[in-house]
Amino acid sequence: MSSNSVAAAIAPLPSWNEGATRDAILDFVQRVTTEGSPDYVPPSERIATFDNDGTLWCEQPNFVQGFFLLDRVKTIAAAQPELAAQQPFKAVLENDKTTLATFGKQELVTLVFATHTGMAIEEFRAIAQSWFDSAMHPRFQRLFRECVYQSQRELLEYLRSNGFKTFIVTGGGNGVVRTVAESIYGIPPEQVIGSSGKTKLEWQDGKPVLVKQPELNSFDDRAEKVVNIELHIGRRPLLAFGNSDGDLAMLQYTAAGTGARLALLLHHDDAEREYAYDRDFHLSPLREALEEVPKLNGGHIVSMKRDFKQVFP
Amino acid sequence: MSSNSVAAAIAPLPSWNEGATRDAILDFVQRVTTEGSPDYVPPSERIATFDNDGTLWCEQPNFVQGFFLLDRVKTIAAAQPELAAQQPFKAVLENDKTTLATFGKQELVTLVFATHTGMAIEEFRAIAQSWFDSAMHPRFQRLFRECVYQSQRELLEYLRSNGFKTFIVTGGGNGVVRTVAESIYGIPPEQVIGSSGKTKLEWQDGKPVLVKQPELNSFDDRAEKVVNIELHIGRRPLLAFGNSDGDLAMLQYTAAGTGARLALLLHHDDAEREYAYDRDFHLSPLREALEEVPKLNGGHIVSMKRDFKQVFP
Repeated sequence: MSSNSVAAAIAPLPSWNEGATRDAILDFVQRVTTEGSPDYVPPSERIATFDNDGTLWCEQPNFVQGFFLLDRVKTIAAAQPELAAQQPFKAVLENDKTTLATFGKQELVTLVFATHTGMAIEEFRAIAQSWFDSAMHPRFQRLFRECVYQSQRELLEYLRSNGFKTFIVTGGGNGVVRTVAESIYGIPPEQVIGSSGKTKLEWQDGKPVLVKQPELNSFDDRAEKVVNIELHIGRRPLLAFGNSDGDLAMLQYTAAGTGARLALLLHHDDAEREYAYDRDFHLSPLREALEEVPKLNGGHIVSMKRDFKQVFP
Repeated sequence: MSSNSVAAAIAPLPSWNEGATRDAILDFVQRVTTEGSPDYVPPSERIATFDNDGTLWCEQPNFVQGFFLLDRVKTIAAAQPELAAQQPFKAVLENDKTTLATFGKQELVTLVFATHTGMAIEEFRAIAQSWFDSAMHPRFQRLFRECVYQSQRELLEYLRSNGFKTFIVTGGGNGVVRTVAESIYGIPPEQVIGSSGKTKLEWQDGKPVLVKQPELNSFDDRAEKVVNIELHIGRRPLLAFGNSDGDLAMLQYTAAGTGARLALLLHHDDAEREYAYDRDFHLSPLREALEEVPKLNGGHIVSMKRDFKQVFP
């Protein structure tokens, strides 16, 4: 047991306020870890899956990867000035909101492929790592990678100290999230399941090099999260935590297993300390999830305002 | 440290004969685990990947999954007698070797889809589990799941006791291999990367059910093994172990990293205790691998006859 684990065992979840949500978490963990309990689950089957954007770190005023994409467009346009005259790059570089509002999936894909592919995976990783070392959140004036929720970091550590294996299941790109997940969440790359592009093994100067291709492999959202949980983990989670309709299928699938389950939805209702957004937030709506999660076995709405004693570390 | 780990630390690899291969393994592990050594690697980056068929368990006279497929064809033909008159089922059921010899990928795909898909993943898992509880190897008269190499089980445990995370990267189906990998190798489902079919989330009686589809997702062989290592693990292995040309790309990719590496190829040269086969074995040829592996950084041919003191447990 690490010193962190000892601290967690003595006073679990210190950044969570006392109340029904914290009680539900503590009760669930006690039930599945107490030998002889009807809900006991052996450690090897204690799987917990967490969405990332809006669940583990701040997703406002835009996804972290959206800011990364914007900076990448600026970087490649500096090297290839002709891009500044072409769409969709032009609108991004000029912050032309009228034109940006007309963009759909096609333009986004063009931007992602132009900025995320055509290089060795190691080169892309170094770019992402370097970006995280300096990129700041516009409102909080702290690094994006420090805009993680302290309560969630404690929950991840508390679960691990109780034998859980913690996974991220995110719509974000696995190449981006994996560069920081171990240092900020204690989650190693092999436990990060994200959206992904195809890669191809090529030979360069007599060496095998894995090159990122401009072709989508998986967009890890909604039902695809469940498909990828099966592909990568091969077991149904006992606990899942999300914050939007994109996570609802994962929460429903988790809750539909036998025995004790926990399906948590974080509701951002704290404009003062972070953001308040609801059903119709365009980046991650929660029209269905707010209604459906409370009906699930072990389903709970977590209120940031009520349940998080502390938001950021 | 488990009692197994203590035993491994006292007398590592007791089922390996003393000699150059065992020395190369012990030397490699010492170099990457000794702090201050120029080849030191922190525990979180100690990734080891193993092929399964012919590397961890016996693949002769046919792949274990080939025997499983045959039994599955018999089972579904008993429930649907009309299949007995249709190809490719007819030839399989009658063991018609002349016709079987004409079969290619199309017939194999038809057989796999008919026997492995169209059901919930839990149902398929139960079928595979039940099969492994009774299916016997025709020559050794022991369960297939007991036809694992004792030396390799010790190597897996020795690596784990030295901070390595061990993965299987197999051409076999992940749904089949995952049902037994934890009990026979100590490798949990989320560390088994195999060939896979698509799955689809469907709603049945108000519950989300993941159903196996008759569509290939990934055939995990050759360069695709490297692609899947990146997709599932996101790091280059330090050590890889295979036994055929299907594993060569994984061995080359592993060896091409910086620092100390180990790329091992098991050569089946022991007809008395197991099988002897070589360059042209139709199921898993090793035309290139026998020549290329010795040239790699940390590349070694492992001889079953010379290096394995004991073959099966």
